[in-house]
Amino acid sequence: MTATASNPTGLDLQQAAKDHLWMHFTRMGAYRDAPVPIIERGEGSYLYDSAGKRYLDALAGLFAVQVGYGYGEEIGAAAHAQMRELPYYTNWSYAHPRSIELATKIAGLAPEGMNRVFFTSGGSESVESAWKLARQFHTANGERRWKAIGRDVAYHGSSLGALSITGVAGIRSPFEPLVPQVSHVRNTNRFRRPAGETEEQFTQFLLDDLEQRIWSEDPSTVAMVIMEPVQNSGGAFTPPAGYFEGVRALCDEHGILLVADEVITGFGRIGDWFASNRFDIKPDIITSAKGLSSAYASIGAVIASDKVAAPFLEGTAMYTHGVTFGGHPVQAAIALKNIEIMEREQLPQKVRATEDQFRATLAQLLDLPIVGDLRGTGYFYALELVKDSETNATFSDEEAEKLLRGFLSERLYDAGIICRADDRGDPVVQISPPLVAEQQQFDEIVTILGEVLGEASRLVGH
Amino acid sequence: MTATASNPTGLDLQQAAKDHLWMHFTRMGAYRDAPVPIIERGEGSYLYDSAGKRYLDALAGLFAVQVGYGYGEEIGAAAHAQMRELPYYTNWSYAHPRSIELATKIAGLAPEGMNRVFFTSGGSESVESAWKLARQFHTANGERRWKAIGRDVAYHGSSLGALSITGVAGIRSPFEPLVPQVSHVRNTNRFRRPAGETEEQFTQFLLDDLEQRIWSEDPSTVAMVIMEPVQNSGGAFTPPAGYFEGVRALCDEHGILLVADEVITGFGRIGDWFASNRFDIKPDIITSAKGLSSAYASIGAVIASDKVAAPFLEGTAMYTHGVTFGGHPVQAAIALKNIEIMEREQLPQKVRATEDQFRATLAQLLDLPIVGDLRGTGYFYALELVKDSETNATFSDEEAEKLLRGFLSERLYDAGIICRADDRGDPVVQISPPLVAEQQQFDEIVTILGEVLGEASRLVGH
Repeated sequence: MTATASNPTGLDLQQAAKDHLWMHFTRMGAYRDAPVPIIERGEGSYLYDSAGKRYLDALAGLFAVQVGYGYGEEIGAAAHAQMRELPYYTNWSYAHPRSIELATKIAGLAPEGMNRVFFTSGGSESVESAWKLARQFHTANGERRWKAIGRDVAYHGSSLGALSITGVAGIRSPFEPLVPQVSHVRNTNRFRRPAGETEEQFTQFLLDDLEQRIWSEDPSTVAMVIMEPVQNSGGAFTPPAGYFEGVRALCDEHGILLVADEVITGFGRIGDWFASNRFDIKPDIITSAKGLSSAYASIGAVIASDKVAAPFLEGTAMYTHGVTFGGHPVQAAIALKNIEIMEREQLPQKVRATEDQFRATLAQLLDLPIVGDLRGTGYFYALELVKDSETNATFSDEEAEKLLRGFLSERLYDAGIICRADDRGDPVVQISPPLVAEQQQFDEIVTILGEVLGEASRLVGH
Repeated sequence: MTATASNPTGLDLQQAAKDHLWMHFTRMGAYRDAPVPIIERGEGSYLYDSAGKRYLDALAGLFAVQVGYGYGEEIGAAAHAQMRELPYYTNWSYAHPRSIELATKIAGLAPEGMNRVFFTSGGSESVESAWKLARQFHTANGERRWKAIGRDVAYHGSSLGALSITGVAGIRSPFEPLVPQVSHVRNTNRFRRPAGETEEQFTQFLLDDLEQRIWSEDPSTVAMVIMEPVQNSGGAFTPPAGYFEGVRALCDEHGILLVADEVITGFGRIGDWFASNRFDIKPDIITSAKGLSSAYASIGAVIASDKVAAPFLEGTAMYTHGVTFGGHPVQAAIALKNIEIMEREQLPQKVRATEDQFRATLAQLLDLPIVGDLRGTGYFYALELVKDSETNATFSDEEAEKLLRGFLSERLYDAGIICRADDRGDPVVQISPPLVAEQQQFDEIVTILGEVLGEASRLVGH
């Protein structure tokens, strides 16, 4: 191979990828005879592969690249400057300016009374850290509580602790036994609820389920309830009115900490710095990662309320936890610059101002017989695919496999769009573009999805 | 506060640190009335705090900063260039040039037959990934094996899976119950073995212990044995002759995967790219992180043998695992540049050429009555502290607490050196400088440690 600007080593990237790279959540055998897709550069909401072909990234990387791909010059300069000054140091007993500044900045954006920030290297680590913190918090208060309650089909990460909390049986079971004792309650998917059920009735149904679960676990053993404000896996399940108020009340009644997993919803995705603000969740702990740096860095943050932090600020008490890269000065510098850009461009406000327009554009796809539901808020939506939008009948596992992996994933990529055809719950197409996307991109999403989902409709017999 | 070059926001960093930063493995109460140490910049093997005071970093961050702190200009430029091109993308079904190049580079440095690389965001995640991989590998071969065997006092990370493997009871127990079923065998600490025991006898003792443990777990349920080639926690325990040959043979006999946890020993620390090469360990999986990027990035890598990778390259098989930041293009670009610098400066070779000289310099400290043992290899040593080097009697927990946290940690920092006074096993001082350190730094370490440990000797009654 000849060396080029984007391939300075002249390596045969295709062959090298096949020989050496272990891709994540990937059927590697699929690339035995087909080329590995190699993404080479980005700009705004668009990515370009090694052949120069353009893709609209309607997934923002993995629900993460809030500012899009066009701020590398500015954010890269901040990283370079920090590299010159202090390329690495730890938060183990020591501090350094960037981690202090970032902790202060995050505390200023977080809900009232959440002032203490612990840094991690990503979302899974944030969830791990929250569970450890909840356990140790209760011990500090003289209680032994260790259990967690999550929700069905919710994804909270892939390390063994976070995976235990994850409610997707198919990605948990290959690795069992995991950390005991996590149970899962109903999520806020309203699509297949009985006809005529009111929103109030639905909320009560969900809260009854949670209360029953708390009692059946023995409330005095439950350390935390952990929920995404808008659940990603299964397809952008928003909370019904009164839901989080009820969850908060149940947690208070039983001395359980409420953790809002904002790895996806944090930092602008739903039109606020935190969904906990928008939905008035009042969590004890927030977990975050992705959008904190628009994924330009590998950094996450756990934000704790003053109540949770208090026992660890006294005497010789210690949160017995840490990670080498937690608060990394370069990663922190990148996150600081990202937040500065998001503030300057008023991205959370822009999302709030544009979300109705985005939703209305996507709603055109409801005319297709294969599209049964459109769910979500902010820049965070899912289309649920059905056999027939008259009956909303769903697909069998085999049909979903054929539709999603046999047709949609490849066809969408060929058509120049990146979004996720997912069946961790019922089959959905997830849409979560960079927060810099505008009406032009919304239209482009609908045009391409309309075409591809139209083909899919015909494929499944319409 | 006035804004300065290193404090551009003019934030009162001391107060902000106390108000908002949750430091790792830190007794926060200690900073109620004392200042938080704020490290501001680095150069070579030295760090400077916010008052401009200089410290020799004899711990290389956390056993990580192989090239020292002086390559920020060059490595930062590589990060900046990658930011301009592609600031983020995933390894989930897609590849990008830097992750392909880094995987290829690592495979070239790894032991023969280890050609497949899975990227993570750090050491804990590498260990989590190795255990998940081991479990799924056995399933793919028609066996259900889930247990892990680690070693006493060994540290493998802090997320709940990695913590389960960790053999330090005191940092595991606050968070139990963890992932079942991990058991721990004897480590290679020879300091307190019976007088007259030969190295051969010691090796046999350790292998008998491991074999007994395998049998008592039921060999057909054990997924992996995981060991650091040189164990950090407890103080740089090197393997006796024949040890890893015997461990490998036991694993082969019982169909167990052998995982070498090289998060610390990888990338030059012990005078080779991998300790698995130096000690001829022949692992099935290597876990790595820190030195891979000299900690300039938040990146780790799991390296798998062809045998381990094979079942995942066929048909629809999939390693059902992934992390958002795995293979991050900017982190990968940083690691690539770090390896290029290490190759150019021949750091692993330099460590091998200098280690005897380093050890001989440190050995001067054995004259102090409080120093009972000097252990280690490469640029990775520990001094074990004893009440009296005539008897080698160790300290009670209370005495160790008073000596380490009441005196040494603060006194060493005041004296301008960063190393770790640790009592996860018996009390040790850990010394692990950047690989660019030379005789001048070795001398400085011995001068400062000699002075401080001399005071400590008098404090404990000599």
